[in-house]
Amino acid sequence: MEKQFSVVGRRLPMLDAAAKVNGSAQFTDDLMLPGMLHGKILRSRLPHAKILNVDVSKAARLRGVKGVVTGAEIPDRQYGIVPKARDEYALAKGKVRYIGDEIAAVCAIDQEIAEEAVELIEVDYEELPSVFDPLDAIKEGAPIIHEGVANNTSFAIRKEFGDVEGAFAASHLVSEDSFYSQPVNHAPLEPHSAVAQHDPIRGQVVLWSSTQIPFFLRRNLAATLQIPESRVRVIKPKVGGGFGQKIDMFAKDFCAAWFAMKLGKPVKFTYERDEVFIGTRQRHPMYLKVKTGMTKDGKILGQQFLAYADGGAYNSTAPTMMALSCFFLMVPYHVPNLLYEGYHVYTNKPVGGAMRGHGIPQARFAVERQLDMMAERLNLDPAEIRWKNSIKAGEPHPGGFVINTCGFAESVRAAAKAIGWKEKRGKLPFGRGVGLGGASFPSGVTNMSHISSGAVVQVGQDASVNVLTGAADIGQGAETVIAQIVAEVLGVSLDDVRVTAADTGATPLDPGTFGSGVTVRAGNAARIAAESVKKRLFECVADELEANPEDLVAKDGVIFVTGSPEINIPFAKALKAYQYKDLPMPLVGRASWMADTSEPTTLFNQPGNFSPSYSFMTQAAEVEVDTKTGKVKVIKMATAHDCGRPINPMLVEGQLEGSIAGGMGQALYENVITEKGQVMNPSFLDYGFPTTLEVPEMESIDIETDDPVGPFGAKEAGEGTQLSPAPAIVNAIYDAIGVHFNELPVTPERILKALEERK
Amino acid sequence: MEKQFSVVGRRLPMLDAAAKVNGSAQFTDDLMLPGMLHGKILRSRLPHAKILNVDVSKAARLRGVKGVVTGAEIPDRQYGIVPKARDEYALAKGKVRYIGDEIAAVCAIDQEIAEEAVELIEVDYEELPSVFDPLDAIKEGAPIIHEGVANNTSFAIRKEFGDVEGAFAASHLVSEDSFYSQPVNHAPLEPHSAVAQHDPIRGQVVLWSSTQIPFFLRRNLAATLQIPESRVRVIKPKVGGGFGQKIDMFAKDFCAAWFAMKLGKPVKFTYERDEVFIGTRQRHPMYLKVKTGMTKDGKILGQQFLAYADGGAYNSTAPTMMALSCFFLMVPYHVPNLLYEGYHVYTNKPVGGAMRGHGIPQARFAVERQLDMMAERLNLDPAEIRWKNSIKAGEPHPGGFVINTCGFAESVRAAAKAIGWKEKRGKLPFGRGVGLGGASFPSGVTNMSHISSGAVVQVGQDASVNVLTGAADIGQGAETVIAQIVAEVLGVSLDDVRVTAADTGATPLDPGTFGSGVTVRAGNAARIAAESVKKRLFECVADELEANPEDLVAKDGVIFVTGSPEINIPFAKALKAYQYKDLPMPLVGRASWMADTSEPTTLFNQPGNFSPSYSFMTQAAEVEVDTKTGKVKVIKMATAHDCGRPINPMLVEGQLEGSIAGGMGQALYENVITEKGQVMNPSFLDYGFPTTLEVPEMESIDIETDDPVGPFGAKEAGEGTQLSPAPAIVNAIYDAIGVHFNELPVTPERILKALEERK
Repeated sequence: MEKQFSVVGRRLPMLDAAAKVNGSAQFTDDLMLPGMLHGKILRSRLPHAKILNVDVSKAARLRGVKGVVTGAEIPDRQYGIVPKARDEYALAKGKVRYIGDEIAAVCAIDQEIAEEAVELIEVDYEELPSVFDPLDAIKEGAPIIHEGVANNTSFAIRKEFGDVEGAFAASHLVSEDSFYSQPVNHAPLEPHSAVAQHDPIRGQVVLWSSTQIPFFLRRNLAATLQIPESRVRVIKPKVGGGFGQKIDMFAKDFCAAWFAMKLGKPVKFTYERDEVFIGTRQRHPMYLKVKTGMTKDGKILGQQFLAYADGGAYNSTAPTMMALSCFFLMVPYHVPNLLYEGYHVYTNKPVGGAMRGHGIPQARFAVERQLDMMAERLNLDPAEIRWKNSIKAGEPHPGGFVINTCGFAESVRAAAKAIGWKEKRGKLPFGRGVGLGGASFPSGVTNMSHISSGAVVQVGQDASVNVLTGAADIGQGAETVIAQIVAEVLGVSLDDVRVTAADTGATPLDPGTFGSGVTVRAGNAARIAAESVKKRLFECVADELEANPEDLVAKDGVIFVTGSPEINIPFAKALKAYQYKDLPMPLVGRASWMADTSEPTTLFNQPGNFSPSYSFMTQAAEVEVDTKTGKVKVIKMATAHDCGRPINPMLVEGQLEGSIAGGMGQALYENVITEKGQVMNPSFLDYGFPTTLEVPEMESIDIETDDPVGPFGAKEAGEGTQLSPAPAIVNAIYDAIGVHFNELPVTPERILKALEERK
Repeated sequence: MEKQFSVVGRRLPMLDAAAKVNGSAQFTDDLMLPGMLHGKILRSRLPHAKILNVDVSKAARLRGVKGVVTGAEIPDRQYGIVPKARDEYALAKGKVRYIGDEIAAVCAIDQEIAEEAVELIEVDYEELPSVFDPLDAIKEGAPIIHEGVANNTSFAIRKEFGDVEGAFAASHLVSEDSFYSQPVNHAPLEPHSAVAQHDPIRGQVVLWSSTQIPFFLRRNLAATLQIPESRVRVIKPKVGGGFGQKIDMFAKDFCAAWFAMKLGKPVKFTYERDEVFIGTRQRHPMYLKVKTGMTKDGKILGQQFLAYADGGAYNSTAPTMMALSCFFLMVPYHVPNLLYEGYHVYTNKPVGGAMRGHGIPQARFAVERQLDMMAERLNLDPAEIRWKNSIKAGEPHPGGFVINTCGFAESVRAAAKAIGWKEKRGKLPFGRGVGLGGASFPSGVTNMSHISSGAVVQVGQDASVNVLTGAADIGQGAETVIAQIVAEVLGVSLDDVRVTAADTGATPLDPGTFGSGVTVRAGNAARIAAESVKKRLFECVADELEANPEDLVAKDGVIFVTGSPEINIPFAKALKAYQYKDLPMPLVGRASWMADTSEPTTLFNQPGNFSPSYSFMTQAAEVEVDTKTGKVKVIKMATAHDCGRPINPMLVEGQLEGSIAGGMGQALYENVITEKGQVMNPSFLDYGFPTTLEVPEMESIDIETDDPVGPFGAKEAGEGTQLSPAPAIVNAIYDAIGVHFNELPVTPERILKALEERK
């Protein structure tokens, strides 16, 4: 009984589905305020140069221009989401470090004038030598991009767990291989946008921004504007995708607020698509060398990694990215001995940042590829080698992770079965093949931000329920999931629940959307707040039902006595009873949730539990390689997925299908091509991510575990499934044509070239 | 100490002053949603007619038209804020009752097309005989405007307190006089507007509306659309004045929601200025006969009233208006015996509704005029006769009112002194004169809506305070007053407080803005919620300060020990302490407030306490009459005002000055002129209310009383001061030229005519 849910676990459409489909949903760029001005940013045309002079006089004189600002005028305060890695100004001061670096901004009565004005700004550069590859950038004598950062290495991480040399000595087979993963852009459909309004009397600025992290943005904006946090209010309208690209503050946020404060008028900055490619963030290109020692029967004894991440011109989330890429080598496989050495290196290229999977997909590609290569040399089944090495729930973990539930081994078997592994692997005609890839991902990282998720649940006299949460729905359906949780607890319909979200001036604190922690963090907060409301209602109707509050159940709009559903009272009637008792106090529940880690780890010292829970998944691919054109057609992707209990299986599937498309892009199509630091394909047309035409048949298998931490047993479901499609596809390509590709993307050119060489 | 306030009692600018001054404030009509459609309403061209047929085919065929609706199609459900007086459809069914009555509505891709389409709708009328004066409308054989309403009398009230006949018999002087007060329009600067958005999946409609009563509007809209209340969400943006005119639901609200639901797109309806004059509400014209008995020395023994209110075509708030006009004859003067007989009569004219003072100004004009006339006949000082008859705090009240504080007698003396009464009254050269008028008003009516005001106060980690209230700020500064109260309680600066207001989907219940109850109702709720937050903070820091929570004080950003301010902790630091203790629960206080009347009266039976508290005021006018042109120049208005303790004296002054302009309009300029039911002056240009050029020197004297009910002793300050400027001015005109004017407005024509006759 208690385990049967009415709202949780159902395939329900997102709360805002209709508004998005009929186009009436309001995104940041849709916002229009009376007297609003429009801004445009001037970006560097050189990859590395001193700024000798910026002459804005012509721009300032252009009719319709209301303001111009250069880096020289703004406060000397760098920003960044990771405090110790702050190295960026809203507008560059003194020098530019990549083509796209922000130099100045203009604000005018319309967009066209703003764009014309930007063209009139004259910049005197002194060009400096540039470096575009991290392996060059670390060499002695390479141009220094950030003063004081030797070898352009802004962050280095070295971790050893156990004894790797010993492990290799004890191994039957030790294999060392090199891999490369390319730069990939998030390409959210909604370009980055910000609108600011300022109140000079109260000294307060309101910023509407397409952001994943309203509260961190408030902090960064307040710091860079040098005003108190309490004078900044960040509101998140609908967001059309983020994928990590909207985790940072950007020049558009700062400049909108800056001009609003200077000019006393609302100001909007919306990036063009090419600015999103050039001037925001991308997935870090990464060189990886992997050395793995195995027993004769394929048990992993030890692994050693050397990673060079191309950070581009700034740090963004560098330390976090490197730490994730390191720590998550210890799931989903049991790696008793691990040595990881990683370097985040500056180059004069677009900036790397958080992107779905955040440092893990690059490492995952290397590991999953090498597993297949070693399985072959050991003459073992790549599927078997995976479940054989699977970590198990409850077992001690070298990294200090606490694995409460783990459906990985099961997911390998299920995915293999779904793709027809037994019948197909190595048995298909030339040009056809199947492949596997496994992965694991955290449900939010406990130790990144000591910030909790708060929730306030109010029940109105109309029997509608309003949830105030700071969680940032960026299109993934966070608000829907939170509403489902509240509806389930209170036993009302989803349509009775409204979510008011992401307004730092009106909703409780939340760290925001990253690390796939929203459902567990904000979901738990909402659950607890709703339970306190329910408790109060139960107390109010207990007498009338002649029962103890503890014996009451709320379900499908009624409150009834456990075991005797005929003794009940409708939710709306219970509300009236409450209002009589509490004459008529607004019915409000509040709660806050934070992962309960006895000793919260800090990424960079001792091991600890990285996340409140871990999800697991295996992806199986079947591909067909056209040996004449070199084109790869993905025929099917089967995913077996342990995300605990899915609150909304349809939304989980949406996440899954999105990440398969993303993984296909990484494997076969996408690549931010630069020449001397200039992005050559900054448009949807030239960039070419997979479309509905490329997306294959997708089968989703739910490996349900009931996790003790997440609300109703839910775990991460947002990013994990993007980790293994790429290796699964590339492994399938090997099965199809017998060529190992260890560099991404696997383009038709590379395939044709490889087939040539094979002859 | 405890009595010295830091924020309460200070002249602070409104929270939204800057946004309104620089034009960036968003009113309903400023709201633009993607894909939004625009609507227009077709109004009756006849004052009284059967609708035989409405042909919308041409309109529907016009390119760009998306929808047309007529009264025949909408649900058979009438609306109105007073349940027992509902007599109006959003769109007329079967017949129209005044020129302006809504017949159909059109919705199109832009405003111009919508307006063109409306012109293409063909209506076949069967004209019916009309009646335009209530005294004709009550006669036998007069045309019946609403079926079943005999003599067109939709509401009658007869109340006797004590023995009026006996009082007259005992009187030294009994005087009977007749008076007339004209129709006046509220003329808010912001025309009425509504924007609706519908979610077909969830079956929910969101309405942004320029309304004074979001929660009542939710109720009326849900009822007329025939969907559950929980499926309607009403949001109040900035409102540019209401004065009672935005208390009703209007066709624009219903039609916006209707089309949004039918078409799945956002829809906006904004009225033109002439529609505001013709198709919304106006102050009821009223005929009054007053018979008063007095002792030789001017003590009122008894009063008898006969009132005919011209309601126009519909009831709107008729019963409330008549009850107010009756009950408030028992303040500010002690009237031991009272007989009131009042009739609300339908005519084929624009609809009367709530307007600042709501039925009382008309009666006040009659009483205050007659007091002067009787004083003259008794050879008494009009000032003396007023304070002599003043009711006193604590004394038993014939109407059952509980008068906790009363500064009326004092206000008469103060106002008289300020205008130079002794030196000037009867002593100025011909053409110059001074006059007085007294009044009293409730601080919200306890018994109209058994709905409480709720408040939720949240303190964020940035030490900012957010207040959620359902109170509707319509420009008077309600949000500022509420924020001041919360800031005072928590001891923070006003700039640290934000107010999130008037969203039925996110803020607690509130009856809305009417009856001048917001400060007392919503202010008390906010005060209590803030106190619960403070209590929790005190508990958290008590140990650290080595004191009992009860001994702590919050003031000017610090919490300190009473008597030893040196032992203190800053508010922000206390917040951190709280977060440690409550790890880190959002700090939320909630409260609800409702007037505590032992036996809430219902207007229409036994007496009882009408309001939690009563404010009192006297206005004194000095005028100059140009005997050649008949023009009256108001030289000065002095007001002595007991509104308890003003939370923000500047806002109180703003209310006062606005109501002096309103009262001048009623006395001298304003009049909605109709000919055969057609409004002849429906524009600012033709209507001619006073401007800054007419407004005189204004002196405001604060008679401070510390009321036990209101927050920090505050009482009503919104409407009361509009009750007596008109009689004060007309009394001054008598002093100037010796002519009694008992009909409003006193135009130059009337003055010249009277001066003629006097010769």
